[in-house]
Amino acid sequence: MYVTQGLHRHVQQCPHEVSTVCAGRTRTHAQSVNRIARLAGALRDLGVTDGERAAILSLNSDRYSEFLAATLWAGGVVVPVNFRWSVPEIAESLAEVGARVLAVDDALAGYVDGIRAGSPGLQHVVHTGDGPPPDGTLSFEELVAGHEPVDDVRRGGSEVAGVFYTGGTTGRSKGVLLSHDNLLTSSMAYLAGVPTPTDRVYLHAAPMFHLADFSAWVTGGIVGGTQVMIPAFDPVAVLAAVQEHRVTDLLLVPTMIQLTVDSPRVDEFDLTSLRRVLYGASPMSDALLGRAMKAFPNARYVQAYGMTELAPIATLLTPDDHEDPARRRSVGRAAPCTEVRVVGPDDAELPRREVGEILVRGGNVMLGYWNRPEETADALRGGWMHTGDAGWMDDDGYVSLTDRLKDMIISGGENVYSVEVENVLAQHPAVATCAVIGVPDDTWGERVHAVVVPAGGAPVTLEQLHDFCVDRLAGYKVPRSMETVDALPLSAAGKVLKRELRKPYWAGQERAVH
Amino acid sequence: MYVTQGLHRHVQQCPHEVSTVCAGRTRTHAQSVNRIARLAGALRDLGVTDGERAAILSLNSDRYSEFLAATLWAGGVVVPVNFRWSVPEIAESLAEVGARVLAVDDALAGYVDGIRAGSPGLQHVVHTGDGPPPDGTLSFEELVAGHEPVDDVRRGGSEVAGVFYTGGTTGRSKGVLLSHDNLLTSSMAYLAGVPTPTDRVYLHAAPMFHLADFSAWVTGGIVGGTQVMIPAFDPVAVLAAVQEHRVTDLLLVPTMIQLTVDSPRVDEFDLTSLRRVLYGASPMSDALLGRAMKAFPNARYVQAYGMTELAPIATLLTPDDHEDPARRRSVGRAAPCTEVRVVGPDDAELPRREVGEILVRGGNVMLGYWNRPEETADALRGGWMHTGDAGWMDDDGYVSLTDRLKDMIISGGENVYSVEVENVLAQHPAVATCAVIGVPDDTWGERVHAVVVPAGGAPVTLEQLHDFCVDRLAGYKVPRSMETVDALPLSAAGKVLKRELRKPYWAGQERAVH
Repeated sequence: MYVTQGLHRHVQQCPHEVSTVCAGRTRTHAQSVNRIARLAGALRDLGVTDGERAAILSLNSDRYSEFLAATLWAGGVVVPVNFRWSVPEIAESLAEVGARVLAVDDALAGYVDGIRAGSPGLQHVVHTGDGPPPDGTLSFEELVAGHEPVDDVRRGGSEVAGVFYTGGTTGRSKGVLLSHDNLLTSSMAYLAGVPTPTDRVYLHAAPMFHLADFSAWVTGGIVGGTQVMIPAFDPVAVLAAVQEHRVTDLLLVPTMIQLTVDSPRVDEFDLTSLRRVLYGASPMSDALLGRAMKAFPNARYVQAYGMTELAPIATLLTPDDHEDPARRRSVGRAAPCTEVRVVGPDDAELPRREVGEILVRGGNVMLGYWNRPEETADALRGGWMHTGDAGWMDDDGYVSLTDRLKDMIISGGENVYSVEVENVLAQHPAVATCAVIGVPDDTWGERVHAVVVPAGGAPVTLEQLHDFCVDRLAGYKVPRSMETVDALPLSAAGKVLKRELRKPYWAGQERAVH
Repeated sequence: MYVTQGLHRHVQQCPHEVSTVCAGRTRTHAQSVNRIARLAGALRDLGVTDGERAAILSLNSDRYSEFLAATLWAGGVVVPVNFRWSVPEIAESLAEVGARVLAVDDALAGYVDGIRAGSPGLQHVVHTGDGPPPDGTLSFEELVAGHEPVDDVRRGGSEVAGVFYTGGTTGRSKGVLLSHDNLLTSSMAYLAGVPTPTDRVYLHAAPMFHLADFSAWVTGGIVGGTQVMIPAFDPVAVLAAVQEHRVTDLLLVPTMIQLTVDSPRVDEFDLTSLRRVLYGASPMSDALLGRAMKAFPNARYVQAYGMTELAPIATLLTPDDHEDPARRRSVGRAAPCTEVRVVGPDDAELPRREVGEILVRGGNVMLGYWNRPEETADALRGGWMHTGDAGWMDDDGYVSLTDRLKDMIISGGENVYSVEVENVLAQHPAVATCAVIGVPDDTWGERVHAVVVPAGGAPVTLEQLHDFCVDRLAGYKVPRSMETVDALPLSAAGKVLKRELRKPYWAGQERAVH
């Protein structure tokens, strides 16, 4: 299998249907593939040949999609860059993978000089923006216009398709090597679990560099249909794009869904085209799901749990699963073509309902980390990917996450899973969203601390939360301190940055990671 | 990916649901997998370790399924044997692959002595039947009962999963090597194209040794649900099984569909459970499709075109495609994860609507033929599987088969595609089914000859067929001679054996194959 294979099918089967819509530009599959084949010729001339790396640092656009496809068509390896990283972090990662080419748009062009300084192997910068190319960069459109289409190299199977850096927000970053088969296995498993017609119109609102959205791009390569890009997530931009382009498929993290459906302008838009809303990273509260179902009247919901190392899907909570309120609290079951286990510290499988680490095995599991043989061997020991997530499984195989192992709080010797406490707090009417962290405590080692975004501006008190929690949680899990904030710090992928929340409390102290 | 992977998911997610139903025996997924893991232990003791071959010669049964799964669980390679072959043919193929173990049921146990004589490497024969094990054979049930469950070896990816002999009816037989990834790619592509819920109840009525039904077994491994086995195709047995087990999914070749829906007893059965009828090998006439839609009121239809070397799917004509009468005459479009091309003798792609050879590329294409490096290189030259089928493609990518290249008739220098003539004849009300072959002709080299099974016993004359064809076909395609027969000779997979039909006409002569 190879990621560009679907492009050949779309040109054969529906050349004149719309492939991409972005910034007022509309291209058919025939036009897109012609541009990709030309750009691939240009990239080959720039040294992006078999297995060579080409990076992209850009907001979402149709050219982002074309650059990814052209790199693979040329036989290269894509390196989508997290634009929330600092310039030295980006330069270091590009130097590590030896990227020869970097594509940047107008929004990120200012980073180029710094990146060049820190990544001396970088030979060419391609400007994907709409403005004039900055000095020393090559024009994307001139590269396309100036080259004849070349044949697809059809590199695939177990060869590397992309390097995806992970961990930039939580610690030392690692480049995850994913093969063509890894990416396609995950997308095919998704499609087997969530039937998706070929007239899918998918909106890239989450960042394309992140594997969740990147995987939806791979899926689009298989299914066909139309891909619509907006530069970055913005609630009103999402609403407007859904209405204008009759979007059928949307992927967002629950935080983004919350911001979208709670937008004061939500009622101004026709959102009846939405059929499938895919979310990940955390379950949705019943309250939020109810508001989302009202806002998107024809949508069904799919939750995927996974991680970059899993290309990315491990479990799926299908639309049918969402009918059952108990199952909605889980992240679903092992997707087709994956196996999932919950194990103890000795990697032996635990009885159902006991909390342990979640392991995953299957054709979607990464090849390894770039140049990190020891960390690779550790993560994949015994043939299973060790996710670092804690959770448990019910009798029907539904997995519930309790926490990232490193976010677990140990208070008075008891394990407190922050997610469990968050799920209770989120049900309080005065709480819009929240995060629970461990902070240092002289008596308990760590104590449970809540960071709350109040709903509707009304104040929230610790006493209110305490009264609400005592009926619903064991005593040692009830928050003993709290703060309110206007918004939680989020990663580019929309995950809450608990490390940031913990930082002021732990300044000058080492926190034990379990 | 590995073929047994789904078994782990089913045991995790639905251990107490029904896995197999056969001959009055019903087993849950937990029971099936326990038996498979025990049998795998027995097979390992018998020498079926990594990559070793274990063959099975049997009518359909639940033990057939368990034997296949246990062989793969043990790390072995399955060799399903065509029971229509002669004993020397079977022995020769088993000797060629060096099979250590052979499973036989009661119906085929009589072959064992002959096979042992011709395949001296065969060490153990396992009896899968219900009667007492013949002398010198091991009891399947005793092997299961006498061994503890062993861990799944999880051999997979590009390693060989099975050797499937092809060509026994049309010439020199070749063992097709299919990997785990080949088989799973084809099944996943099917599922992406034809959404199939996990409560699928599939009826094995076509022979399990043939890759069409074997692939449906692999698909069942992914989806879960229930697999029902009847020993062999029989119209009334199919009807009875559909009613009794509320079968939802059925795979048959059109000949078998015709025999089933035209059964005089069809109205006695409740066939409302059928949701998906998958057929292959040839398109269905509108007349037959109409009768089938009446007989199976809730079924939708899927046509798959492929061959053993493609594990087996190349194209899919989806249920939606069946709504369009013009598309129903095609075999559909390239399935997800495959590419299809029509090429001339130089392997260059032809313009649309020009007839040429059909080539296929993708993760489903075989590893090669067992011990046939030259034939492998020839079949896969340029990275594409050369199917030997002639056909053409329309502007939307729909492929129509004109013929097997070797069944094409050259009459007076003109190419006549037998399938085209058959499709016209099949529309005549007096024709139940038919085959068109080339027979020697002093004037034309070959002439078009029709072999007709009359409908309802009324006689058919050449003049009637001639009058019907002249308005519908070019003059050189109209049959110039005919014969009537009670039934066409069929392969075990239900394909018409044109070689058999041609034999009396070509006795003592060499027929040029184009």
